[in-house]
Amino acid sequence: MKEIKPIKIKKDMKVSELVEGMRDMGFGAGNIYRASEIMKKMFDDKECLVFFGVAGAMVPSGMKQVILDLLDKTGVFVTTGANLTHDLIEALGNKHYQIEGEINDSELREKGFDRMYNVLMENSVYEKLEDFFRANADEIKKCKDIKEFLWKLGELSPGEGILKKCYEKKIPIFCPSIADSGIGLMMWGLKTSDKEISIDAFEDMKEIIDLSWTAKKTGVIYVGGGVPKNFIQQSLQFSKGADYGIQITTDRQEPGGSSGAPLKEGISWGKMKKDADFVDVFCDATIALPLIYAGIK
Amino acid sequence: MKEIKPIKIKKDMKVSELVEGMRDMGFGAGNIYRASEIMKKMFDDKECLVFFGVAGAMVPSGMKQVILDLLDKTGVFVTTGANLTHDLIEALGNKHYQIEGEINDSELREKGFDRMYNVLMENSVYEKLEDFFRANADEIKKCKDIKEFLWKLGELSPGEGILKKCYEKKIPIFCPSIADSGIGLMMWGLKTSDKEISIDAFEDMKEIIDLSWTAKKTGVIYVGGGVPKNFIQQSLQFSKGADYGIQITTDRQEPGGSSGAPLKEGISWGKMKKDADFVDVFCDATIALPLIYAGIK
Amino acid sequence: MKEIKPIKIKKDMKVSELVEGMRDMGFGAGNIYRASEIMKKMFDDKECLVFFGVAGAMVPSGMKQVILDLLDKTGVFVTTGANLTHDLIEALGNKHYQIEGEINDSELREKGFDRMYNVLMENSVYEKLEDFFRANADEIKKCKDIKEFLWKLGELSPGEGILKKCYEKKIPIFCPSIADSGIGLMMWGLKTSDKEISIDAFEDMKEIIDLSWTAKKTGVIYVGGGVPKNFIQQSLQFSKGADYGIQITTDRQEPGGSSGAPLKEGISWGKMKKDADFVDVFCDATIALPLIYAGIK
Amino acid sequence: MKEIKPIKIKKDMKVSELVEGMRDMGFGAGNIYRASEIMKKMFDDKECLVFFGVAGAMVPSGMKQVILDLLDKTGVFVTTGANLTHDLIEALGNKHYQIEGEINDSELREKGFDRMYNVLMENSVYEKLEDFFRANADEIKKCKDIKEFLWKLGELSPGEGILKKCYEKKIPIFCPSIADSGIGLMMWGLKTSDKEISIDAFEDMKEIIDLSWTAKKTGVIYVGGGVPKNFIQQSLQFSKGADYGIQITTDRQEPGGSSGAPLKEGISWGKMKKDADFVDVFCDATIALPLIYAGIK
Repeated sequence: MKEIKPIKIKKDMKVSELVEGMRDMGFGAGNIYRASEIMKKMFDDKECLVFFGVAGAMVPSGMKQVILDLLDKTGVFVTTGANLTHDLIEALGNKHYQIEGEINDSELREKGFDRMYNVLMENSVYEKLEDFFRANADEIKKCKDIKEFLWKLGELSPGEGILKKCYEKKIPIFCPSIADSGIGLMMWGLKTSDKEISIDAFEDMKEIIDLSWTAKKTGVIYVGGGVPKNFIQQSLQFSKGADYGIQITTDRQEPGGSSGAPLKEGISWGKMKKDADFVDVFCDATIALPLIYAGIK
Repeated sequence: MKEIKPIKIKKDMKVSELVEGMRDMGFGAGNIYRASEIMKKMFDDKECLVFFGVAGAMVPSGMKQVILDLLDKTGVFVTTGANLTHDLIEALGNKHYQIEGEINDSELREKGFDRMYNVLMENSVYEKLEDFFRANADEIKKCKDIKEFLWKLGELSPGEGILKKCYEKKIPIFCPSIADSGIGLMMWGLKTSDKEISIDAFEDMKEIIDLSWTAKKTGVIYVGGGVPKNFIQQSLQFSKGADYGIQITTDRQEPGGSSGAPLKEGISWGKMKKDADFVDVFCDATIALPLIYAGIK
Repeated sequence: MKEIKPIKIKKDMKVSELVEGMRDMGFGAGNIYRASEIMKKMFDDKECLVFFGVAGAMVPSGMKQVILDLLDKTGVFVTTGANLTHDLIEALGNKHYQIEGEINDSELREKGFDRMYNVLMENSVYEKLEDFFRANADEIKKCKDIKEFLWKLGELSPGEGILKKCYEKKIPIFCPSIADSGIGLMMWGLKTSDKEISIDAFEDMKEIIDLSWTAKKTGVIYVGGGVPKNFIQQSLQFSKGADYGIQITTDRQEPGGSSGAPLKEGISWGKMKKDADFVDVFCDATIALPLIYAGIK
Repeated sequence: MKEIKPIKIKKDMKVSELVEGMRDMGFGAGNIYRASEIMKKMFDDKECLVFFGVAGAMVPSGMKQVILDLLDKTGVFVTTGANLTHDLIEALGNKHYQIEGEINDSELREKGFDRMYNVLMENSVYEKLEDFFRANADEIKKCKDIKEFLWKLGELSPGEGILKKCYEKKIPIFCPSIADSGIGLMMWGLKTSDKEISIDAFEDMKEIIDLSWTAKKTGVIYVGGGVPKNFIQQSLQFSKGADYGIQITTDRQEPGGSSGAPLKEGISWGKMKKDADFVDVFCDATIALPLIYAGIK
């Protein structure tokens, strides 16, 4: 039990000072500090393998660089097909856009923009994506599991991004729901003309389970829940349970889904150690993750 | 613009009367009625193919029968690996349990119970699951895509449930993230001893896209968002956009994820027709879906 | 620990059967049943005084009759000025309206409609309200505390409603934030021309504290939190703590406000007995309260 | 429509740089920047009177200093009785405390701690509060309206804080629901022995309405909604509508309450100008408000 001390905002205050000031606050602010402290611990612990799971349209919202920076510290990456599709779309030279004020979706449809809350993307980006897949079909068809396929996309990608970095740094990247994405649609396109393409849905499970099984200690960072969180959690059942944990989600626990389940629920499953160091952060990840990460820079 | 009329709760009132009474209410109650009205329309429309997407641990919470009943009315089913694993677990004779009051996850761990909010499952259920997969390995290894594999599980399943019904009624069932589940773990187990097993991650996309492409009209029912919603939505980009839509979710739209995105966002993408009949229901699905469905019985 | 049993929706099913069926479900459905069970217990317990707190625009959404019915079972009523203003507005012959689809607030402004989510009210209702207060100024000015004033409004009200019923049945009604409402604005209007009007802000606290102090047992029903919940809670600090509790709110607990705080937090304050029978229902009250109440009819 | 640019977290980055970087992001981060930009505009606009409404237990969570700093920029302050009670409690020398991990409310009860999410307060603080009120009863009984009473508390308060500052700087402070608080309980205590004490519930409405009526331009900052937001909003109906607006809340709009209603709803009521500069921030205020404010330092 520590005394609450009011935070004082100063001119030219550093983000690290702001987060430090949140140490003595309650409610969400205290949890931001705590997440930053735990992130530092898991990154500093040489025995700890960090599993980083990212759901939600993080790339379109401008979180790509934060993810790239965190990939230098984390050992395993799991994300959604959507994030990787948007990553590839940007690597191919396309942009995402911010909008404000009243939204008219019918008008956006006519103008050729796809909306994700207050972010837009031109629907025409799919053309470049198709060109990329067609041009690289011969290389792609050699891939036999999803991780290999994603690394291949990173190798072939002409621009910087998550796929490129995971390939170059040999970061194990998993995306069990890859069919559920623009990339999935492209693969469906290739397969209609080439029956030989075959990427196994279960093959790379061995690798993430091995990583979990052999790690001395494990840490988890879950952004937004979804398949990335759940896929890491199920792999962690083959570990001794995570030693460190950070979860950033705005989902509720009451409707019973994995995305809103607090980390402590994982103790019952053996996904989290009972005396692990962990915190649930209830906050939009585009606000919380930059803050938490800045707190350890 | 219709007049609000206060609902009157009567003795022995039928659920259909309750929902009917919600017609003249505002806020969430009005949306329950509206969802029931739209469900009736899409089920009555002979030209309409209904895509039913279910995320969240619906089977463990006691929603299996409601899903089974709705499968009689819907033409395509997409769900998570977790739901199907829990369905198979029940088909193999295991149970889920309800708890109340203070929860001690460390204690649950010691007693061998896995928790999902206020629902428990014995961790030992995985043993029967393993036995089932081992006993049926020869049959399972013949499957080449996920839908075929899921129908096979339904065929082999010794008990009633979603998998069994989808197989028996030949309901197209999709689960792109099947690796992310207990069933996925079982497949990983089989694959360690049998290299021939190979289930393609993208193969059955053709079928759901064809179903979307050829349907005269389409309707969607999304429970909880997640991969099931997104996978249906991306297939609907090959349709003229859905004509009817019901979404039940408690997720927020502000953090930009698909699960919390209101249905109208889909208009920009062409996933929903601009003049479609649709409603977003902000409610726990275990409360909302029984009500909405009872409203049309 | 009870077994989960899937709910079966039947033709012509009664609401009471639906709620009964939710007894064996998890997640939110289970909590609806539990709330209904606790409501029955507190209403059946002859020694129990029930405090009913209602925040949120319940009258505009069509919940007036449910509240009126519950007032027959509850001993103390606390609500917001807004609810009472809308109650009086309806008693004076005005209506609320339901809207669907895209909303244009600038257009509503021009047309003279005030919006509460999907419910509208004509801005001109304030004219009748002013007439009512002016016509009754002499009677109103005699009132010295808020409860007396609210009973007086009920006596003077020409139509049925919450104010009328509380007056007629002599149900103690409290509204500490009455200045924060259309009724408050009317009183400000009267006071500009009549300096004698004086209604004490603290006077009726004695009564609710006495009711709490002298009750053998107490139960609480909180809809939406806010001042009504908090005012009841602070009065309950003078009781032995509530024996029964139902809370219906969609607010989060993490930001630390009273509206989202789970009932168990009240144990630390002595507002709730440590072994009390209580449940938190995460659901829109326009859906949950009719269901819960129908469950005991 | 502006291009999204990924934020880059740098070593020793200032908070103002972080917020500046959020300008080119989507989802919540973009809204933090936008709120900071609007805050700067409303504070820089010499014609603008800023109404600052604060609900939620902000003082206990360590937000007192941020509120004190903002009071230098805002012209009218509206808050809950709870915030003012906690402010006075701290001014009398008591503390609030932060807790982590598993919470046992029965144990807290026995140890004499009252809980607000992850913040504690000793229940014994009420003793000092009682001493303070008893010692100052003669001064307090002279007060005739709530604002006068609150300024008097500030004058009498032995320590720094919100009440003290509002008194010293003559900042109009309103709290229509003051009876609903520890301060309210103290007044009930005084009134039991002194019948002369009489503080009018409606008297100070004139002042806030006059302030709204006469302001050339108005801005609003709402933290957490509740009575503070609603009381400001109803006063603004006597203005031309607010020119600037920032709302920080985690409440949902769907259940129809004022706390979760987006600012644009206020346009229909005339509480917000149709072309006003405003933004809704979905975030815990203990995270968002320090960030937004640091963005303009």
